[in-house]
Amino acid sequence: MSKRVAILTSGGDAPGMNACIRASIIACQKANYTLLGYKHGYNGLLQQEYIPLSLDSTHNLIQQGGTILHSARCKELKSHEGIKKAANNLMKAEIDTLIVIGGDGSFRGAAEIGKEWKGQILGIPGTIDNDISGTDATIGYFTAIDTAMSSIDKVRDTADAFERIFLIEVMGRNAGFLALNAALSSAADYVVVPEFFESADKEIEKIVTQIKAQRALKGPVSFIVVVAENVWPKGLSGLTEELMKHDISDVRPVTLGHVQRGGSPVAQDRLLATTLGEFAISLVGSDITNIMVGEVNQRPVTVPLHKTWENTKPLNEAHVEAMRTLMNERYSSW
Amino acid sequence: MSKRVAILTSGGDAPGMNACIRASIIACQKANYTLLGYKHGYNGLLQQEYIPLSLDSTHNLIQQGGTILHSARCKELKSHEGIKKAANNLMKAEIDTLIVIGGDGSFRGAAEIGKEWKGQILGIPGTIDNDISGTDATIGYFTAIDTAMSSIDKVRDTADAFERIFLIEVMGRNAGFLALNAALSSAADYVVVPEFFESADKEIEKIVTQIKAQRALKGPVSFIVVVAENVWPKGLSGLTEELMKHDISDVRPVTLGHVQRGGSPVAQDRLLATTLGEFAISLVGSDITNIMVGEVNQRPVTVPLHKTWENTKPLNEAHVEAMRTLMNERYSSW
Amino acid sequence: MSKRVAILTSGGDAPGMNACIRASIIACQKANYTLLGYKHGYNGLLQQEYIPLSLDSTHNLIQQGGTILHSARCKELKSHEGIKKAANNLMKAEIDTLIVIGGDGSFRGAAEIGKEWKGQILGIPGTIDNDISGTDATIGYFTAIDTAMSSIDKVRDTADAFERIFLIEVMGRNAGFLALNAALSSAADYVVVPEFFESADKEIEKIVTQIKAQRALKGPVSFIVVVAENVWPKGLSGLTEELMKHDISDVRPVTLGHVQRGGSPVAQDRLLATTLGEFAISLVGSDITNIMVGEVNQRPVTVPLHKTWENTKPLNEAHVEAMRTLMNERYSSW
Amino acid sequence: MSKRVAILTSGGDAPGMNACIRASIIACQKANYTLLGYKHGYNGLLQQEYIPLSLDSTHNLIQQGGTILHSARCKELKSHEGIKKAANNLMKAEIDTLIVIGGDGSFRGAAEIGKEWKGQILGIPGTIDNDISGTDATIGYFTAIDTAMSSIDKVRDTADAFERIFLIEVMGRNAGFLALNAALSSAADYVVVPEFFESADKEIEKIVTQIKAQRALKGPVSFIVVVAENVWPKGLSGLTEELMKHDISDVRPVTLGHVQRGGSPVAQDRLLATTLGEFAISLVGSDITNIMVGEVNQRPVTVPLHKTWENTKPLNEAHVEAMRTLMNERYSSW
Repeated sequence: MSKRVAILTSGGDAPGMNACIRASIIACQKANYTLLGYKHGYNGLLQQEYIPLSLDSTHNLIQQGGTILHSARCKELKSHEGIKKAANNLMKAEIDTLIVIGGDGSFRGAAEIGKEWKGQILGIPGTIDNDISGTDATIGYFTAIDTAMSSIDKVRDTADAFERIFLIEVMGRNAGFLALNAALSSAADYVVVPEFFESADKEIEKIVTQIKAQRALKGPVSFIVVVAENVWPKGLSGLTEELMKHDISDVRPVTLGHVQRGGSPVAQDRLLATTLGEFAISLVGSDITNIMVGEVNQRPVTVPLHKTWENTKPLNEAHVEAMRTLMNERYSSW
Repeated sequence: MSKRVAILTSGGDAPGMNACIRASIIACQKANYTLLGYKHGYNGLLQQEYIPLSLDSTHNLIQQGGTILHSARCKELKSHEGIKKAANNLMKAEIDTLIVIGGDGSFRGAAEIGKEWKGQILGIPGTIDNDISGTDATIGYFTAIDTAMSSIDKVRDTADAFERIFLIEVMGRNAGFLALNAALSSAADYVVVPEFFESADKEIEKIVTQIKAQRALKGPVSFIVVVAENVWPKGLSGLTEELMKHDISDVRPVTLGHVQRGGSPVAQDRLLATTLGEFAISLVGSDITNIMVGEVNQRPVTVPLHKTWENTKPLNEAHVEAMRTLMNERYSSW
Repeated sequence: MSKRVAILTSGGDAPGMNACIRASIIACQKANYTLLGYKHGYNGLLQQEYIPLSLDSTHNLIQQGGTILHSARCKELKSHEGIKKAANNLMKAEIDTLIVIGGDGSFRGAAEIGKEWKGQILGIPGTIDNDISGTDATIGYFTAIDTAMSSIDKVRDTADAFERIFLIEVMGRNAGFLALNAALSSAADYVVVPEFFESADKEIEKIVTQIKAQRALKGPVSFIVVVAENVWPKGLSGLTEELMKHDISDVRPVTLGHVQRGGSPVAQDRLLATTLGEFAISLVGSDITNIMVGEVNQRPVTVPLHKTWENTKPLNEAHVEAMRTLMNERYSSW
Repeated sequence: MSKRVAILTSGGDAPGMNACIRASIIACQKANYTLLGYKHGYNGLLQQEYIPLSLDSTHNLIQQGGTILHSARCKELKSHEGIKKAANNLMKAEIDTLIVIGGDGSFRGAAEIGKEWKGQILGIPGTIDNDISGTDATIGYFTAIDTAMSSIDKVRDTADAFERIFLIEVMGRNAGFLALNAALSSAADYVVVPEFFESADKEIEKIVTQIKAQRALKGPVSFIVVVAENVWPKGLSGLTEELMKHDISDVRPVTLGHVQRGGSPVAQDRLLATTLGEFAISLVGSDITNIMVGEVNQRPVTVPLHKTWENTKPLNEAHVEAMRTLMNERYSSW
């Protein structure tokens, strides 16, 4: 039976969103569903601004970063009026299934719409931060790790040449996934993540101890500290000041910034995006609704939307353990 | 208690082997173990050719493809005399634990040595083919997928420009992991893998049907067939001949070849290699022996060596399902 | 005064062709010219198959490999009837200026058309082979060097791991530019280029001498020979056989193939393509015709079309000199 | 006749410095010269801290960013005592030729030493800024362009997704080479370089005009401004403030930072570094001294050291012209 499906991308863009849109287009075409794309996230839904998505749109799409549907913040959706308008528009457009690719803010919006609209709602996790419970990884996360890692590899060249200390801020919102993985894969010397951050005082003591221990052992060497955003009071400049108080100068800060959000997706993101897109379309028309599709232990799963933000997602223990050992951290709670 | 640990890399080299050696070095140093590296795979063990591995060896090691310990085939180890000599050399060198990074051939050798030597034997899966049971992924596999995918992305530029058919052979030994993942992530139009290969006749019929269907629908378009090595009779030239019999010419073959084995490892390989190396060293001195360390569902595990080759490792079902849908395959057993 | 300009891409595609089209579109839009794109090379001209090219076509175009106008061989243009038809179609479509992006075959076609048609004809050099006289570089050449170099970097990882000999065939048609630059930038041990190839016998003697000298000095080491296509009798398999006659086995051949034609263009190709496209449009409406635009000593130049294939373009002498020194070649004419 | 040659890297590190060291090592070995490497720039010379450089040091060196000889600032060399000490140390170490890879500060130091020491002094231009007169390009410049361009490509994904304005600061010291080339090759919408900067007021007017013109034409679109470092008063935050005064908010700043200095060199840098290194060694023992070797119009040249900083090096005119056209700048002095 033919269905009308609508899809939108919301929140921060992430590499692989386009790969997910592509898989959805092809899967819909095979199932004889009509697929519409709302533009600019929920704004498109509120403005009834949508485009048809056909096979013509899929050419060379899997490789592209960003999102061809665009994304945007949407204040209006935070009001009850906004939610009702969205629900109303879905009815008017005779949508059977709404698919939302985004992060937890996007899913909260979707869940609210689900209270006012009887159609089927499916979320797909798309964010470089990986801070969504119910799925091992989120679309964009793998690419962001590789981007951050490659950037740190490059900074290390200069750090080694000058035997200098570099502080590198990576994204992650309020989670340490990206920072921990970037640090571990780039052989950084220290990492600061929110999950293990007790206080600036305790942390600075450890960092200083490590730097001094390394320099006592080997003489001047490079030292790279990866710092998750939103953790250190006053960010990298705060940390730089603290280090200077401990007579450690010649410190260089690098904020990787928005570079981490873009780029052609790496294979793991294309695979995740493709399988989740295909899986989501396979659920169209079923009773399953108000859920996010995800991947756990290499298998597609469904999770009630509200659990994606209510449950806390822990860091990978093996990564934590490995980082602890390799960071040469002998004293701390790590 | 101090231990003497020896490590070697055997079989085809894979990106991330060096990252694994690096993690082992640091973990040994922290545990106060001595770490030796046998060179040229089992040949080094048979020739008692080893080097000390200290922190000095770890500088900029995580990024390097290949293996600083070198690898090689070793016929001598296939005889009982070779095995006894290896066991004897381990005793003479007072090794407590032997760590072998490699594929199933390497693990078979290790298991044989385990029958003649009382020390501890730990395997770490390193091969781009991912054809080892008991671990979700093997070191090098992720990088090889990205390398193959990027190469196919490039070939597609020409395929699109000329609206031509390209046949691309990727590695994988007797398994379709690399081919399936490379095809799925590069939006290839068709993939031939050993797991689903019935006969050249049936396969050629499907390929020709697909090509004709696409051309009927869209006019001349590019069409990319990814073919796993060792599947098609007489390889790409055999397939090209078959296509010509069906009046499909203007076909171009590309064999990706050894490029797929090298390169700086991507983040996922560095993470896997680092966690497995660290985990292996954490087992040194325990009763656990004759096992491979692996990662299943994001957790480190141990598997008896013989199970790594006795059990068959299936393709990821979600990938198979997604490829089936996206390949536009309506008729077949896929 | 408004002009009607037509553009087409012909011959082998090359990274940067799209960047050149993009620059042409923007420059035309600023000059108030109409720009049409003939599709599939000269076939589009013969079939009067063209599309308008406006600013809408420029989005994210600079990064794309291949050519959005497609390319193709065109037998019909080799006949006088074909040429007359092309000239006729240009008149019918009221084209003032025809721009051809391609290699020497494409320029020969353009020159023939110029005998039958009074409009303005401008060539832009686009080929990875760099075998066009009158310009220091051709669009696509820089990217192909980097692609070949990166591939050789990867092969070296395995070559080093196994201390093996690898033979790597790179493209270049009948010129050694790509092979020489790829070899020099990847620290290859030997390179075979048509410009210095005397005979297989002499060449094999040098290669064998080099390999034996290196092995005498250092023991088993990797050895990488870069071979330009179309030089060695029977290609890499011919060379492999010759080496076996000299007791050198364990040789692995790698043919880089079509991967070298694709990919997102590197900066130097985007810059060259952009400046040549902009420069070509600046000539529209002038008396200059039947020329190729090129870049010599960092300045845009114009060259009569026939000189682009009549004159021979020598290899960069500094590169030859450096390769000679670094190849450790003591005996030869190099 | 055998010679003793010393080499050092000074100033900011640049990709390709190692490729240059590698070529120098091999060329020295072939000429039977002894080559020493002073570590940490001029500090090593002042401390007589050097290492022998032999073929063993060349393995996998061409690919590495940074400098294996390390670099550092050196205040002591700015005093006359420092210069005399350096000269004295060169005599004591019986150096015939000193090779300095670096930028203009490094060359000034070398020229001062040349007044106190009778040996031969050769400079090789190594800096990502390309701000050295007498050579078309400097080692590291090409890689930095590609790094900046790739980063801007990534930022554009997000800029497009959100239709936002991004300000991207790139390095270049007091020259606009890197900014202009990065902007032109990444299809940035506007670039601010010191060579054309009149005042913040005039520049802001142009930028605002451009943004408003684009938005009037196309509705909300992304807009990317590349800004050379050290040009805009108070940098990107100053520019952001100015834009807000003109009612343009939703502006995101990205400072690419030290990432631009590192990374494996692209082919053009490896080629330049290799040919200059080989050429410098070919001059050892000749009368030519107190010069920099460079490349002009694809040929190696020598330039008196003092001319490298006295003469001003202009931007490439074809690039300026192309950027002017593509930037859609109708009113200004550009």
